Amino acid sequence: MIALLSGPDRRGIVAHLSGWIYERGGNIIHADQHRDHEEGVFFQRIEWDSASDDLPAEASEFRDYADGLGMETFVALPGHVPTLAILVSRFPHCFHDLVLRWKSGEFACRIACVISNHEVVRRDCENYGLPFHHIPVSRETKAEAESRQVDLLREQGVDFVVLARYMQVLSADFLERLGCQVINIHHSFLPAFVGGRPYHQAHARGVKLVGATAHYATAVLDDGPIIHQDVVRVSHRHNVASLIRKGRDLEKIVLSQAVAWQLEHRILVYGRKTVVFD
Amino acid sequence: MIALLSGPDRRGIVAHLSGWIYERGGNIIHADQHRDHEEGVFFQRIEWDSASDDLPAEASEFRDYADGLGMETFVALPGHVPTLAILVSRFPHCFHDLVLRWKSGEFACRIACVISNHEVVRRDCENYGLPFHHIPVSRETKAEAESRQVDLLREQGVDFVVLARYMQVLSADFLERLGCQVINIHHSFLPAFVGGRPYHQAHARGVKLVGATAHYATAVLDDGPIIHQDVVRVSHRHNVASLIRKGRDLEKIVLSQAVAWQLEHRILVYGRKTVVFD
Amino acid sequence: MIALLSGPDRRGIVAHLSGWIYERGGNIIHADQHRDHEEGVFFQRIEWDSASDDLPAEASEFRDYADGLGMETFVALPGHVPTLAILVSRFPHCFHDLVLRWKSGEFACRIACVISNHEVVRRDCENYGLPFHHIPVSRETKAEAESRQVDLLREQGVDFVVLARYMQVLSADFLERLGCQVINIHHSFLPAFVGGRPYHQAHARGVKLVGATAHYATAVLDDGPIIHQDVVRVSHRHNVASLIRKGRDLEKIVLSQAVAWQLEHRILVYGRKTVVFD
Amino acid sequence: MIALLSGPDRRGIVAHLSGWIYERGGNIIHADQHRDHEEGVFFQRIEWDSASDDLPAEASEFRDYADGLGMETFVALPGHVPTLAILVSRFPHCFHDLVLRWKSGEFACRIACVISNHEVVRRDCENYGLPFHHIPVSRETKAEAESRQVDLLREQGVDFVVLARYMQVLSADFLERLGCQVINIHHSFLPAFVGGRPYHQAHARGVKLVGATAHYATAVLDDGPIIHQDVVRVSHRHNVASLIRKGRDLEKIVLSQAVAWQLEHRILVYGRKTVVFD
Repeated sequence: MIALLSGPDRRGIVAHLSGWIYERGGNIIHADQHRDHEEGVFFQRIEWDSASDDLPAEASEFRDYADGLGMETFVALPGHVPTLAILVSRFPHCFHDLVLRWKSGEFACRIACVISNHEVVRRDCENYGLPFHHIPVSRETKAEAESRQVDLLREQGVDFVVLARYMQVLSADFLERLGCQVINIHHSFLPAFVGGRPYHQAHARGVKLVGATAHYATAVLDDGPIIHQDVVRVSHRHNVASLIRKGRDLEKIVLSQAVAWQLEHRILVYGRKTVVFD
Repeated sequence: MIALLSGPDRRGIVAHLSGWIYERGGNIIHADQHRDHEEGVFFQRIEWDSASDDLPAEASEFRDYADGLGMETFVALPGHVPTLAILVSRFPHCFHDLVLRWKSGEFACRIACVISNHEVVRRDCENYGLPFHHIPVSRETKAEAESRQVDLLREQGVDFVVLARYMQVLSADFLERLGCQVINIHHSFLPAFVGGRPYHQAHARGVKLVGATAHYATAVLDDGPIIHQDVVRVSHRHNVASLIRKGRDLEKIVLSQAVAWQLEHRILVYGRKTVVFD
Repeated sequence: MIALLSGPDRRGIVAHLSGWIYERGGNIIHADQHRDHEEGVFFQRIEWDSASDDLPAEASEFRDYADGLGMETFVALPGHVPTLAILVSRFPHCFHDLVLRWKSGEFACRIACVISNHEVVRRDCENYGLPFHHIPVSRETKAEAESRQVDLLREQGVDFVVLARYMQVLSADFLERLGCQVINIHHSFLPAFVGGRPYHQAHARGVKLVGATAHYATAVLDDGPIIHQDVVRVSHRHNVASLIRKGRDLEKIVLSQAVAWQLEHRILVYGRKTVVFD
Repeated sequence: MIALLSGPDRRGIVAHLSGWIYERGGNIIHADQHRDHEEGVFFQRIEWDSASDDLPAEASEFRDYADGLGMETFVALPGHVPTLAILVSRFPHCFHDLVLRWKSGEFACRIACVISNHEVVRRDCENYGLPFHHIPVSRETKAEAESRQVDLLREQGVDFVVLARYMQVLSADFLERLGCQVINIHHSFLPAFVGGRPYHQAHARGVKLVGATAHYATAVLDDGPIIHQDVVRVSHRHNVASLIRKGRDLEKIVLSQAVAWQLEHRILVYGRKTVVFD
């Protein structure tokens, strides 16, 4: 059982929660907590072996108990396999990277489907045994395309969506109707180089490092809570094409790490920030 | 109050310890734990605001309580300022780095004295206002020199000793008589290039990264529990002299990080390994 | 045209070589050189646009000219596409990584075939459109298996071979009969943790970084010239399984970088070392 | 002799320059070049042992020759020791770092003086044996203070100025009258977090890496050509104070590297970018 909690900090929370678990015969495997002293907020991730025969009941009781302590609580039952969907456009490196990690057993999840506004990965999806949906997007059809995407994703009951270099801006309406988290990979070290063609921007500015940022998508472009970032060294020798090539490895590493944390329920969002219990 | 505990893993430890603190009106600020599932060992670092008027008494009671749970326990009282001594030979970069961090307020400690087998840093110690002791070491005088060092260090009541590029091998007898931890910086990525002239060894092997390792000194050379390591990229363009120069920055960063963790009671040793609650 | 040269250092080499190219109407695109002052050896990589109608003839004349200067010389004609073969055992992550980079246009080469002592990647090879050869290896059949491998690789005219986590030690005889370079990925920061199960060794030693090393295979296990290395930070929280998972990403990055350099003729071997003009 | 050249790219430049040196009996020690194919600009750094008895004459002739090829040229005579000055405000870590590197022989230069708008490092300058000038700056006295600074720096014949966490914005007029390069360290990964309190900005945005950037100061704040950058990983556990502490190490490393390259004549500025021949 894994619980993610956040709420107003108060004396005794750790004792209360661990006591609750102990009294029910549970055994805490991992526990990590954080206090934001400026904001007075407490965050915790607890993972425990439950002694209960009825896990859903214990999860529900735990939520009630934490609720009484003023905590917002998410509880994942053991054995629950999260479902995700991948959206991808023309550049398939992150798509392949995610699927191969999944096939190698690195990700415990179900990949419900792959949606693309291009045909590039259709054949690969067939080889991987993954449902592929081609939903083209143009300025005129965008609203309709987003509707089809939302219908498909909700039908599949996805727990979250991964934008694996999906090059369309999602509308606020899409995010709201979707109702689950969306992880995006942006190919720069945010907040530097927001928006389009960040490698071109980086090249023009003459930076000595390029970055990649995994973040939750929000209605404001490239502004959502940052989950993970990394950079790689570049020099005057790198033109835009070589920045793009160097960046691909970064994007794969950064996005796959964010997805791994999401699957293991390690991320708590608060405001524009994240707490990552890694 | 900061407690560092380790001992056989058992159900309810987290609940017991946090409950004990809560019952006495304490407030846990930070808590981090680790389980070595293979060895069945539990490790914890807890930091709490005590409500007690008599902190030494509470610390003592906590130790007794943890003892009853089978834990080995160290408790640091708030306001306790650890005392350390620095041993250094000819290369003063780590010495300067440590002292300047201390002067800038980065290290909450007392530097009891500086001991060297050379005169290189005498004047600097005067400028820094630090007691300097010149204890030359030759093959013939080594035993006697170590005796003088131990006497001095014990007299000063040091909590631990830092070898800031001290180029003499310490005898097992010295370590035993000293009776406190000794942190050494070795200028390679251990266990590669144990012993003398590691940069020369690295150059001869043609490695593409050089490293530095902070570890606790034991009777076996460069074999003690590793606290921290880092590396830096090198190429065919680097001769031994430039490896040495590159390595200096690494040594400073790695050693100062290890000392910071030691001062904040973040390190637990077990067997040949460390748990670092960073 | 790309030339890689090495030989005894002497005054005027740069002027002679660049003058030779200039006189024939060539235009140097890139040039990089290195001097090992201790050994008195000069190394150079020159890339130029030739004005000649007969490139093989110019390459041959250049080799003769450099020969006269005492240089060992390799010349790659423009448009030459190197041929490589991949050997892989049970863990396919480096195999997939290399093939996907090749398919995305990152590697300008022909992949002649994939050879494995297991069946794990057969189906993937079919999907990728790559010839797959299953050559099982046991202690008894090793000599015969190596013979079949050498025959196959020579028949295909491979320029070099990549061991993408191929878990059999190659005999000195194999390497000699093969007669081309073999790039191996070792899953540790060599020279630490030579031989089998390096992640287990690293875990037992309690290191705080794990590494991967791409090197040329020689008759001595894990002892050949190092091409590239990288490391990633680990902590007490990582058991062997998580070291292995962390290490996979390193292995992919380090091996693919070594292969990229090999394909671009950027590596010169001398003694147990490499010069990499990156 | 070290020459730094840049100018319109043309066939034969490498041959011409290396031929010129060879004909005069010189021996090229290092040579590195770069072509910006988009802009059609050629850059080179050549270091050679001259055979001439009159080095200034050869330098002058070389400049004339390169001038004839359309190159802008800087030539450093062997044995020339560059002179720099350090400006620092309240935080002395970069100041100490630079001076200790200089004292350890890492920097071949003369430190003409240290100028500060505070008294913090006066005593340290005395201990280091460095002239210290206290020039307070307020809004009213800024123009006058800059005048005194320029007079002092020009009087000392400084080759360049290092802003080692000097917290005053320099006017365009100051830079123009000074007439030499000024290297600044900015405590963020530019172009993210331009201007004041970058660690506060980084904390508010919830980034997972903080950076430091060494760049040439221009009339536009934090906009000049970037010389070097690096980053360090942070997490939700770091408040602003710990970002500041983490950042200090970065600032020292990044600034000292930029100064080292400047002293070795490895940096060419073009437009808003730099070519660094490292």
